[in-house]
Amino acid sequence: MSTPDPAYRRPIDLKHGRVDLAFGAGGQAMAQLIAELFARAFANDYLARGDDAAVLPALTAGERLVLATDAHVVSPLFFPGGDIGSLSVHGTINDLAVMGARPLYLAASFILEEGFALAELARIVDSMATAARAAGVAVVTGDTKVVERGKGDGIFITTTGVGALPAGRDPGGARAQPGDAILVSGTLGDHGMAIMAQREALAFESEIRSDSAALHDLVETLYAATDASAIHVLRDPTRGGLASTLNEIAAQSGVGMLVDEASIPVSPAVQSACELLGLDPLNLANEGKLVLICAPHATASLLAAMRAHPLGGEAACIGEVCIDPQGFVQLRTCLGGRRMLDWLAGEPLPRIC
Amino acid sequence: MSTPDPAYRRPIDLKHGRVDLAFGAGGQAMAQLIAELFARAFANDYLARGDDAAVLPALTAGERLVLATDAHVVSPLFFPGGDIGSLSVHGTINDLAVMGARPLYLAASFILEEGFALAELARIVDSMATAARAAGVAVVTGDTKVVERGKGDGIFITTTGVGALPAGRDPGGARAQPGDAILVSGTLGDHGMAIMAQREALAFESEIRSDSAALHDLVETLYAATDASAIHVLRDPTRGGLASTLNEIAAQSGVGMLVDEASIPVSPAVQSACELLGLDPLNLANEGKLVLICAPHATASLLAAMRAHPLGGEAACIGEVCIDPQGFVQLRTCLGGRRMLDWLAGEPLPRIC
Repeated sequence: MSTPDPAYRRPIDLKHGRVDLAFGAGGQAMAQLIAELFARAFANDYLARGDDAAVLPALTAGERLVLATDAHVVSPLFFPGGDIGSLSVHGTINDLAVMGARPLYLAASFILEEGFALAELARIVDSMATAARAAGVAVVTGDTKVVERGKGDGIFITTTGVGALPAGRDPGGARAQPGDAILVSGTLGDHGMAIMAQREALAFESEIRSDSAALHDLVETLYAATDASAIHVLRDPTRGGLASTLNEIAAQSGVGMLVDEASIPVSPAVQSACELLGLDPLNLANEGKLVLICAPHATASLLAAMRAHPLGGEAACIGEVCIDPQGFVQLRTCLGGRRMLDWLAGEPLPRIC
Repeated sequence: MSTPDPAYRRPIDLKHGRVDLAFGAGGQAMAQLIAELFARAFANDYLARGDDAAVLPALTAGERLVLATDAHVVSPLFFPGGDIGSLSVHGTINDLAVMGARPLYLAASFILEEGFALAELARIVDSMATAARAAGVAVVTGDTKVVERGKGDGIFITTTGVGALPAGRDPGGARAQPGDAILVSGTLGDHGMAIMAQREALAFESEIRSDSAALHDLVETLYAATDASAIHVLRDPTRGGLASTLNEIAAQSGVGMLVDEASIPVSPAVQSACELLGLDPLNLANEGKLVLICAPHATASLLAAMRAHPLGGEAACIGEVCIDPQGFVQLRTCLGGRRMLDWLAGEPLPRIC
């Protein structure tokens, strides 16, 4: 007779095994997968309790709660500079960070396709755990579902983050004001081009790596460098790139923007790959870059603080917010003309994150 | 020249349109889908801000934070008694409720397959909004991704819930003690059999409906009926059914259980469908039922409180916790014998939730 204790069963073969439907069925196979893979990798007391949800400590008095969620469907799953695991941690941490919040906890939900190699799953889960640990964030609860072969694509991961917002911080897309400076924390387009190159098996002279990184420490550095009220907008320009992010903020705030093309940092490798492929780096996704819109008096100190941080070495002030009820974002081109920087239209790169 | 304000664009055709990759690309189509479908249906100030995350009020002093996440991949998407939308709200609310928490907020992440009908998406989103409103819970933030045709299956929804746990409540799977009573709040197997009947196009004499429901109000009723410390374990027996749930608790608590088969409520329709199909109702999923394990002195008052609640009319005490270091769950059969009630093995019903 079988026993209800997973310890008596043969361990799951994480080297050669594959996901089967039983791993999502709520029975013993699922309990084993949780114990032998997820709980071991994410090792913390919340998960170890084995309940349906995690009970977390109260926040510090005066701090507000911040909640963000992101599904990750990136293809391919592994790429230079990261994988779907690290990306799913960084992406959601960054959504918290751009609200000014300190990220605290993550919930992770997995949708696995029948037949997916357990070795790849283990590699992805390890990568998540490493990224979360590096960021000081615990993966405290989770869920796993399995869909039949051909009804998914290997693995999708939704991460949901909880953060704490210290009093006095209130950045938001609707807070850009005419006269504000627009800063970016580094080169643009690296993540999008890394995915595209990997997907299309393009070989460039120098490898293009995703910039995937957790931005919360950079955000803390910025708040330490100025009065919190000077930081009007923080955003990470992911899908749709800088172009869509700036248009979104302009629409939310009811302002225009004037950006100097020459001042936008783009790495030579991404620039030449874009020219080759007819893409605009301003439409490409980033996963470790910050757009900051701030009061003019704080520009110099914030730019200096960015540049002194490991993730902001190539930070630049790229333009300013102006009065424009139509919400146009204009680019002052290197040749002295002006062109509209529009939202990304259509879909140059599906499943970029 | 196109303008960056969605208001100037032609509205999305929610009647005849289909999901295309642009809806997940971070550009204007995605902004339109959010504005014209999600923000309208879930109507609240958090979503209306249009930021990457929701900033929520602090919890009441003394309350702990509870976090739960669930991916929903149910197939078919629509079934008697519910759909993937209402299920995705109830499922996560219930994960919070069984921790003793009051559910407060939901985050929703959608993975859509290219070609999925927008009319079905709108119907599902409306169903989510209705279920959330009925439960007094706001959907405060979300995310949408689109995968290519053949790489998904219409729609997957991950919901993540935040709840507040009042002081003094601490139910948990490891707290069952010998002598405790085991109660269930109503008939078992309804959800699983409703899905199976719909999927296999089985017609029974009377339609079998999913029991999908939010259990937090029932849980509040229980806490009002006794001292909080008498409630040792709360669980909703979803995937794997009552059998897996009891085995899970037995393993976590290091106890055995003895359950009277005759006392377990099963509707006649589910019972006869199970006999026809060779299934055990104790292995079938439930989405609106509670398993409660309590100190013996509180059994009568808790059973009475359950029965007085709209979701607990057929509640029953089905057995008791006993000393058994091996963690066996045994069933006293109607014929007077005993058999092991084991975890669900294998997978009778994939994608049940």
